[in-house]
Amino acid sequence: MLRLDSTDADFAKKFERLVEDRRESGENVARTVTDILEKVRSRGDEALRELSARYDNYFLTDDQATWRIAPEDCEAAFKALDGKLRDALELAAARIRSYHEVQLPGDRDYTDDAGVRLGAKWRPVDAAGLYVPGGRAAYPSSLLMNAIPAKVAGVGRLVIATPTPKGEINPLVLAAAHLVGIEEIWRVGGAQAVGALAYGTDRIAPVDVVTGPGNAFVAEAKRQLYGMVGIDMVAGPSEILVIADGRNDPDWIAADLLSQAEHDPSSQSILITDDAEFAEQVEDRIDVQCSMLSTKRVARSSWDEHGVMIVVPDLAEAPALANRLAAEHVELAIDEPEAMFGQLRHAGSVFFGRHTPEAVGDYVAGPNHVLPTGRRARFASGLSVLDFMKRTSFIEMGEAGLAAIGPAAIALAEAEGLPAHANSVRLRLS
Amino acid sequence: MLRLDSTDADFAKKFERLVEDRRESGENVARTVTDILEKVRSRGDEALRELSARYDNYFLTDDQATWRIAPEDCEAAFKALDGKLRDALELAAARIRSYHEVQLPGDRDYTDDAGVRLGAKWRPVDAAGLYVPGGRAAYPSSLLMNAIPAKVAGVGRLVIATPTPKGEINPLVLAAAHLVGIEEIWRVGGAQAVGALAYGTDRIAPVDVVTGPGNAFVAEAKRQLYGMVGIDMVAGPSEILVIADGRNDPDWIAADLLSQAEHDPSSQSILITDDAEFAEQVEDRIDVQCSMLSTKRVARSSWDEHGVMIVVPDLAEAPALANRLAAEHVELAIDEPEAMFGQLRHAGSVFFGRHTPEAVGDYVAGPNHVLPTGRRARFASGLSVLDFMKRTSFIEMGEAGLAAIGPAAIALAEAEGLPAHANSVRLRLS
Repeated sequence: MLRLDSTDADFAKKFERLVEDRRESGENVARTVTDILEKVRSRGDEALRELSARYDNYFLTDDQATWRIAPEDCEAAFKALDGKLRDALELAAARIRSYHEVQLPGDRDYTDDAGVRLGAKWRPVDAAGLYVPGGRAAYPSSLLMNAIPAKVAGVGRLVIATPTPKGEINPLVLAAAHLVGIEEIWRVGGAQAVGALAYGTDRIAPVDVVTGPGNAFVAEAKRQLYGMVGIDMVAGPSEILVIADGRNDPDWIAADLLSQAEHDPSSQSILITDDAEFAEQVEDRIDVQCSMLSTKRVARSSWDEHGVMIVVPDLAEAPALANRLAAEHVELAIDEPEAMFGQLRHAGSVFFGRHTPEAVGDYVAGPNHVLPTGRRARFASGLSVLDFMKRTSFIEMGEAGLAAIGPAAIALAEAEGLPAHANSVRLRLS
Repeated sequence: MLRLDSTDADFAKKFERLVEDRRESGENVARTVTDILEKVRSRGDEALRELSARYDNYFLTDDQATWRIAPEDCEAAFKALDGKLRDALELAAARIRSYHEVQLPGDRDYTDDAGVRLGAKWRPVDAAGLYVPGGRAAYPSSLLMNAIPAKVAGVGRLVIATPTPKGEINPLVLAAAHLVGIEEIWRVGGAQAVGALAYGTDRIAPVDVVTGPGNAFVAEAKRQLYGMVGIDMVAGPSEILVIADGRNDPDWIAADLLSQAEHDPSSQSILITDDAEFAEQVEDRIDVQCSMLSTKRVARSSWDEHGVMIVVPDLAEAPALANRLAAEHVELAIDEPEAMFGQLRHAGSVFFGRHTPEAVGDYVAGPNHVLPTGRRARFASGLSVLDFMKRTSFIEMGEAGLAAIGPAAIALAEAEGLPAHANSVRLRLS
């Protein structure tokens, strides 16, 4: 864990090093992914068989049941949930749905002073593919967060691809798929699954957008296929920045920092406070709480390697630091969070006040938990219905409208050396 | 030029081949670009000197004047424009501005039934870099189309990078820069310019978003840097689809097809009509008009290599074909364009009726001319203010709100095996 004090002489240098540290995999996966994608593009299902056997120890055969998970299995998994968990999933789904419904963009259609009709129409993509990781990161909450915006956008075909190593699959994921009404689930994972969704194979029809979390190979496959399909974003390790004064319960803040740390050893938790003693209390509580977690190995590693505590003389310094960090999650555990929020220019999602732990945003608050990481909040936004929609602009002119603005188009086309552009307007004016 | 008749037995096969033909550079530029970006990342301005000398025959020295174009030069270029052209640029800028102002997204802030306050706030990125190509493709209209949405979004720092081969620069581009108020213009081009904008160098501060057209190296550099910065989109060769009945003037439609063809030899112009005789007339007019164009070499090559005429028995077949093509520009030169527009699911921009040539959209109509190419209208949209903004979600709960939905978060966190997530809620509830 790194301790910084903003009054130290070398603080600026150390803080910049923190800002530049992306904690992203140095592993050179690009070439492996390029090879895998080329195999899937050229040999389709045959490549999926080969790669699933190699990477997932899972054997796809001529039996379609080895390729797809039946909707009946999802329904059974949903019905088998204990009542409290089913209610929680349903509450989460309902709240996520209602938040994302508010995001639906409006079309535009107006006629301006020159008599030119202009507008834009939003439509959903035809098909979206949702990657769901196997193993530790197979979170039903991620499935809801990716699938529901697509459904709200009006996407007609929504497909899941998920690896089932040795045939195993998390029943909670199946239950969540049933809850949101996804019936097309393919048992393929890794970069090969992303390739199959983008290129299509004999069995799997191609999609237009691929979203969802995954390991470095999945992320790299999405990056390489971006432009051939739409993707949600390039995602890195998760992070939280907690800005807290000394009047918080150190146990609460410790839990918030650990909730980030337990995700992954490369996750990062940062505390900014104006109270050095409070920082020490939080650190003590982290030690105590961490020792009791079933995730302690991951949480400890993350906190030891990437945890940061920054003490500042005045929290008025915090927004400038937060804007440099452009963190995925920012908690404002202070009395007047709104005033500080007004000074935050870059953040994925912000949690106001002392009673809004980040974890509620992961599950049930409603806003999406797929958020820009690694300082990408400087230019990127959380997942929304817009990621599953696109906009077509339109223009309509009659003779009067063309007479009003056509001559300017002719002048510009000629200046740019594009005479056929000019002709297409001039012929209609004469 | 390819002639297709939808009643031919092998039409489906030939049409699919057309759909799959992306006309994109097979040139292997990826490795060259990777090398260039690594040079810029590690050696900064020194690499820019070396690469500008090599690729642009332009020599950057210790004299800052060799690096930047002075705002006074832009002002002088603007003042030197002939009056008609200056008026045309000003009309274009005003109309583009007013169309994009309507795109500004609204913030959200509401409290739901559970007493949870939810919202989202849009903010501009801090800095955007606009690439402007040198040589033939240095279009002032592109500068307006990229810069104005950024300005409307509220971007504080807007930077141009443009190559000046042998020191030359298009005065129209300088004039357009003056008109939109850009004062920071760097004389660097190619992949190295995109790298400098993304990574920053000693002289050039980094930006958050890079947009603008460029050659295959520029496009590949943007693709490789996507995720480190935001980019507009992966762009390929331009295309137009004209859907026209036989009651159009064949000269008008010929000009429209040629206006696309004259852009680049890899551009594509496609006509769908229900009148075979009309198609022949259009072809004749293309031959006549093309021979008179100063751009005839490019236009001829594009039309001969990539031009397509599809005759269908009934234009009711057109929307299904258009949706497969998902073209950048679609003209509906028919009596009731609106009804057909309702059936178009995928198109970058649509031009209604007989008096709306695509070229007005390139210059003065108002909607952006930076549009998805190569079937990307399936999932992508034209450039807009949203490309220069990002959204931060926020959540605020008091004790009552947390009591209402916190228990569901605990249940889900425990089911996902994330006990610190559960703790962070549970501690606040007890």
